Amino acid sequence: MRFFKLIIEYDGADFSGWQLQNHRYRTVQGEIERALKQIFKKRIRIIGSGRTDAGVHAKGQVAGFAVRTRLQCQDIQKALNFYLPEDLVIHHVIETEANFHARYSVKSKIYKYVILNQKTRSPLERHRCWQIPRPLNLGLMRQAAKIIKGKHNFRGFMSANSVENDSILRNTVRTVTKLNIKKQGAKIIVEIEADGFLYKMVRNIVGTLVQVGLKKMNQKLISKIYKEKTRMLVPAPAPAFGLYLWCVKY
Amino acid sequence: MRFFKLIIEYDGADFSGWQLQNHRYRTVQGEIERALKQIFKKRIRIIGSGRTDAGVHAKGQVAGFAVRTRLQCQDIQKALNFYLPEDLVIHHVIETEANFHARYSVKSKIYKYVILNQKTRSPLERHRCWQIPRPLNLGLMRQAAKIIKGKHNFRGFMSANSVENDSILRNTVRTVTKLNIKKQGAKIIVEIEADGFLYKMVRNIVGTLVQVGLKKMNQKLISKIYKEKTRMLVPAPAPAFGLYLWCVKY
Repeated sequence: MRFFKLIIEYDGADFSGWQLQNHRYRTVQGEIERALKQIFKKRIRIIGSGRTDAGVHAKGQVAGFAVRTRLQCQDIQKALNFYLPEDLVIHHVIETEANFHARYSVKSKIYKYVILNQKTRSPLERHRCWQIPRPLNLGLMRQAAKIIKGKHNFRGFMSANSVENDSILRNTVRTVTKLNIKKQGAKIIVEIEADGFLYKMVRNIVGTLVQVGLKKMNQKLISKIYKEKTRMLVPAPAPAFGLYLWCVKY
Repeated sequence: MRFFKLIIEYDGADFSGWQLQNHRYRTVQGEIERALKQIFKKRIRIIGSGRTDAGVHAKGQVAGFAVRTRLQCQDIQKALNFYLPEDLVIHHVIETEANFHARYSVKSKIYKYVILNQKTRSPLERHRCWQIPRPLNLGLMRQAAKIIKGKHNFRGFMSANSVENDSILRNTVRTVTKLNIKKQGAKIIVEIEADGFLYKMVRNIVGTLVQVGLKKMNQKLISKIYKEKTRMLVPAPAPAFGLYLWCVKY
């Protein structure tokens, strides 16, 4: 048996997220497994570094799988890209050790969130960012980011209707090691790195930062979110289509 | 009668170009005139700064029209954007003098062309740039750009099957005042400004620059294109979906 790691880019707009579901839904996992079946003529399960929701994009999603084959990495990559649709591509196929696990071996993940802060919507950037028509105060957002950064119990930033199992609810402490806010023209890019993310954690953090930037929420409330650990204090999560799983570190 | 100027952004992917054609085709002009009809309850002709081909995008296309109305610019803009589809938007509506003509008053135009110089295709950038898998030599491309820049007879860079009328063929001298090549990560962005462009001139110039960057064509040939003025020497034009009409100056 040989073990492989895939580095994957996808446009999330037309996917019902990463995870294989019922056959009526088009998922990233489903498309890749279908391509693998074409190549190896049998069912191969892939394990992703984690799920992404419907609409969420990825520049560097990672998945692993095992197969008995004599094919070279490059040949597997070419064959996969031949079968994959235009909104999904494999940038690299890398052979790994048997003990590599795409989910459990993760050291940290980086997400980027793109906000477009301009009055009118952008046809060229639609499905790619969250357009906020009113001006955002970057200084306030950066101050709030400093409070969010660090090791905290992020339970208050987890999705209210989270369907995660009990073991995850038992430990909702995460360490956000990076939380940068950069301005590029009309775009505001939030880059966030952590040792792990709770369900909808990035989108809840960005939703909060935007409310702070609009002066509809102050920083005291963020401390309260940590203390009271209730999702009820957090504003609506930022929409999925502005979010990019940027890279996964092992 | 009052006179207005529109600043327009569109994603060219699903348009059969700018110009109104037969009703089976979806065009930018057609969509805007349809929206104007909804607002003013009568047929209003718009004049664009120039046509763009199917697939070509615009960040700052300009069009003008005249109408008897008491509506404010902002109200016209809001109403237009309400009726326009998601791949087309009006960023500004500006009232102009009666002697403003969207095509004849043009001083210069800026186009950008986006090349993605990486091995694998990019799902997130598809329909937005031209992916070139082999490495491009930027130094050679910049040297060639220096030769192309300036006042020349660009007839050799005009489309071979150009359907322009005789008056245009009589004068094919244009002045390229800017031709910059910038690298941004895996992207190579060609920015070109001229007092006017012949049909497919930008795409033919970019097609030539790419062949130079791939070392399949040398700079001597460019001088020959100028001298002999024949389209036969120019390589295939760069594809439409990497091209952006960036701004129009008056």
